[in-house]
Amino acid sequence: MSEYILPLERLVEQFGKLPGVGRKTATRYALAILDLDSEKAEELADAIIDAKRRIKRCRICNNICEGDLCDVCTDENREPIICVVEDARAVMSIERVRDYHGKYHVLGGVISPVNGVGPEQLKIKELLARVNNEEIKEIIIATNPTIEGEATAMYLTRLLKPFDVKISRLAYGIPVGADLEYADEVTLFRAIDGRRELN
Amino acid sequence: MSEYILPLERLVEQFGKLPGVGRKTATRYALAILDLDSEKAEELADAIIDAKRRIKRCRICNNICEGDLCDVCTDENREPIICVVEDARAVMSIERVRDYHGKYHVLGGVISPVNGVGPEQLKIKELLARVNNEEIKEIIIATNPTIEGEATAMYLTRLLKPFDVKISRLAYGIPVGADLEYADEVTLFRAIDGRRELN
Repeated sequence: MSEYILPLERLVEQFGKLPGVGRKTATRYALAILDLDSEKAEELADAIIDAKRRIKRCRICNNICEGDLCDVCTDENREPIICVVEDARAVMSIERVRDYHGKYHVLGGVISPVNGVGPEQLKIKELLARVNNEEIKEIIIATNPTIEGEATAMYLTRLLKPFDVKISRLAYGIPVGADLEYADEVTLFRAIDGRRELN
Repeated sequence: MSEYILPLERLVEQFGKLPGVGRKTATRYALAILDLDSEKAEELADAIIDAKRRIKRCRICNNICEGDLCDVCTDENREPIICVVEDARAVMSIERVRDYHGKYHVLGGVISPVNGVGPEQLKIKELLARVNNEEIKEIIIATNPTIEGEATAMYLTRLLKPFDVKISRLAYGIPVGADLEYADEVTLFRAIDGRRELN
């Protein structure tokens, strides 16, 4: 069902591959491209090709990087803690806090039978190898608080139990600055359940 | 402030050019590109270049097209009515209704002193030339119901007055399926003001 002229239809379809982009947004993007100077549009096309060519995965932690190893893995001052995350986006978010000085391990997703993702598609073997070889003191499992993120966290906990390493999970609770009134029940339950004594 | 490795930063900046895309969404798109196969990413890049090269503007109505003239302008069965719109997106929306059989004229924006857009940047001269030469019976001004769209509509009405042509504007009112309770006051006022007698 090609509603538009062919080159536009093709561009709309391509933009539709981006996460959360439906046909309407894709059309909006495609028409915005047509309004750009040819030069500016080429810059976007080049940046896509260039990023694909130059950005690789860190051989140790699977985070994105330009060389063989990422900046975190080559930093000798990092503490022997591994924060296990779903994707590179999570690494960026945690790095932005500037309060975590450990290392990372990027799984590359979560276990999701619905989407055909099993443990073998994730960098779990590599994580276990690191725990074996790197003298890690603690593993912080920081997968997202979704059903699949939780299941993956539980799966990893079970796998990591035999190792002599502390395993922790990020705290759940009310986001700072949020109003209790708008917190969903599960979050509120977790916030009460995980309450901390004030000294 | 390059927070990311260079090729990623560059791609994030490029995606940030798309309408309504902030840094967070741009990062999400950029990382999605990294997760694609190289081939798929190239398809997007190619589609951008290809669309820019192949899509042109209709010599008569300024709508997007592949050749010299658009499908509407070459269609001899179109009625001698011109629907004046801001952009090609509006043409697509109206064509989708399949109930309008006239022609179009794409202004290429609206008059907006804040954004430095004056009447001379829009295809207004070309519209007047068409009214002069094409024996048009009616002009429907279909700019968006925003302040700038309204101002442009008023400006065009004034310019078109001297011609022997009926000038109309799309009706304002409650959107079909909407609840009165959620209609803003201006819309409600316009809906009352433009009420139609039932026979």
